[in-house]
Amino acid sequence: MSAGPDAGGADGVWVGVDVGGTKVLAGVVDADGRVVRTARGETPGRRVDPTLVEDAIVDAVLRVAGEAPLTGVGLAAAGFVDAVGERVMFAPHLPWRGDPVRERLASRLGVALALDNDANCAALAESAYGAARDTTSSLMITLGTGIGGAFVLEGRVLRGRNGMAGEFGHMKVVPGGQACPCGGEGCWEQYCSGHALVRYARERLGREPTVLGELCGGDPARLTGPMVTAAAADGDLTARQAFWMVGNWLGLGVANLVAAFDAEVVVIGGGVSAAGERLLEPARAALRLSLVGADHRVVPPIVGAVLGPEAGLVGAVVLARSQS
Amino acid sequence: MSAGPDAGGADGVWVGVDVGGTKVLAGVVDADGRVVRTARGETPGRRVDPTLVEDAIVDAVLRVAGEAPLTGVGLAAAGFVDAVGERVMFAPHLPWRGDPVRERLASRLGVALALDNDANCAALAESAYGAARDTTSSLMITLGTGIGGAFVLEGRVLRGRNGMAGEFGHMKVVPGGQACPCGGEGCWEQYCSGHALVRYARERLGREPTVLGELCGGDPARLTGPMVTAAAADGDLTARQAFWMVGNWLGLGVANLVAAFDAEVVVIGGGVSAAGERLLEPARAALRLSLVGADHRVVPPIVGAVLGPEAGLVGAVVLARSQS
Repeated sequence: MSAGPDAGGADGVWVGVDVGGTKVLAGVVDADGRVVRTARGETPGRRVDPTLVEDAIVDAVLRVAGEAPLTGVGLAAAGFVDAVGERVMFAPHLPWRGDPVRERLASRLGVALALDNDANCAALAESAYGAARDTTSSLMITLGTGIGGAFVLEGRVLRGRNGMAGEFGHMKVVPGGQACPCGGEGCWEQYCSGHALVRYARERLGREPTVLGELCGGDPARLTGPMVTAAAADGDLTARQAFWMVGNWLGLGVANLVAAFDAEVVVIGGGVSAAGERLLEPARAALRLSLVGADHRVVPPIVGAVLGPEAGLVGAVVLARSQS
Repeated sequence: MSAGPDAGGADGVWVGVDVGGTKVLAGVVDADGRVVRTARGETPGRRVDPTLVEDAIVDAVLRVAGEAPLTGVGLAAAGFVDAVGERVMFAPHLPWRGDPVRERLASRLGVALALDNDANCAALAESAYGAARDTTSSLMITLGTGIGGAFVLEGRVLRGRNGMAGEFGHMKVVPGGQACPCGGEGCWEQYCSGHALVRYARERLGREPTVLGELCGGDPARLTGPMVTAAAADGDLTARQAFWMVGNWLGLGVANLVAAFDAEVVVIGGGVSAAGERLLEPARAALRLSLVGADHRVVPPIVGAVLGPEAGLVGAVVLARSQS
């Protein structure tokens, strides 16, 4: 097996790896950002020796590269990475606690390795090849249980003094509002996230038979985000109202971010974004209503992410290439 | 008269000009950001031919340069400048409405000219020579009647798609809150600005004799920001409470910005900042309380601007040099 010249420098390949709490996904990425082939592995857990996680990463990288030499590797980690991209400081589902992951893996693989967190990598990939390609600046909002975010300017993610830029979900939008696990109150992600979506649906779930009630067996405590998404697609009004509320708060928060960053495009990813226009349409309306000077500026489009679950590994390669 | 070699390239000088609604201030700026000498002029008004304003600028530049040739000129304008620094799109106190100010003045002065708005220029000056020197990233918040803002990264102001980045004052912090002239509700500057300071003081002004009551002749409608500042310095509790409220909202809003930008330092300028620690101390407390992950990061210092009213013209020269 040999890689074509478009898959890396000389005869080598660029490999991106996305490591999350349950799986390792490695892929060879060509010069156009396409994933040529992938290899999967399991993450051994969070209460193990970090070496075991690193073993799984090395194994997936070598498997996907096959006989092609490695030109460079990018690692997207589901955790908090320091400002210089050396260490994973903390990861809720992985054993790293300040470990020098970049250097360790670069040494084991014998190749330059770039490290950043998965949300930043996904934003970079959307900027290079996805929904924000051909723009100078973009905002990426990942709506999962909470909110992940990143601002990309001229092909680089704004990382900040502590590597903590882009914590948009903890911007306060309601004084004295919903308590947040971060210790604050009224954080944006308490109103705009998968968590909020489920809360809105629970609060509105009545006793009359509905699609949503059927999906959760009549027990609001068993409601999940995917159930709300499915019920909304099936015409359930409670579910649709919950999406409208998340979408409305999405637009309000995006208006705040656009006031500050004046980005060219806003990309929405994450599980909640599977609802597509049901989420994005109210967000666009709220953005136009809330954004300062909306009639005197180009209001950025709010669009869905397009690269899917491979965005993290692709972005890790974009980062690795930019550092080479 | 001749300029020393530190005042410009060869024997030439770098001149910065700050043009506001009432005056033109030009200054020769040396290589260390020091203002060597200044010249002043009056702004002819907002309902005049724009040429008259440009005449006043050219006159001030030539007077301050004296016999030294111009190496470059920077113009800080109290108005909205387009994303590429060519035109002043709108200025509430000046006659420009989309005029190609950069090209016109460069042509009349026969030298390269850089243009940006005065708040951006002041932020650039503080970053290069002032309260944010030796940092990679800084946030500047100018507290006047409203809020002016800028984010400086690696010596450049983030300008954005429309040249409208940094509109921090119109980020919404209270749903359905105070109406704002921008058309929105609950904008940050409705709670944190000179305007808000006076409103807080008015709302609290009782009938008992106080320093503040005396200053405004017992008529809340005659209260001004400088009166509140003076009364607070003189021990007036109502005035001090008004500053505490503005400072508290300042810290809350700064926490939102730091969550997004993770800047190294936050610089507070503008008329309200004359109150110094009376404003900054509650702001720091609120920042520490509100900022996500405050115990796990370097929380940026909130400091006062140091360059004073010449910051705009100094920053205009910083910009002009960066473009040369």
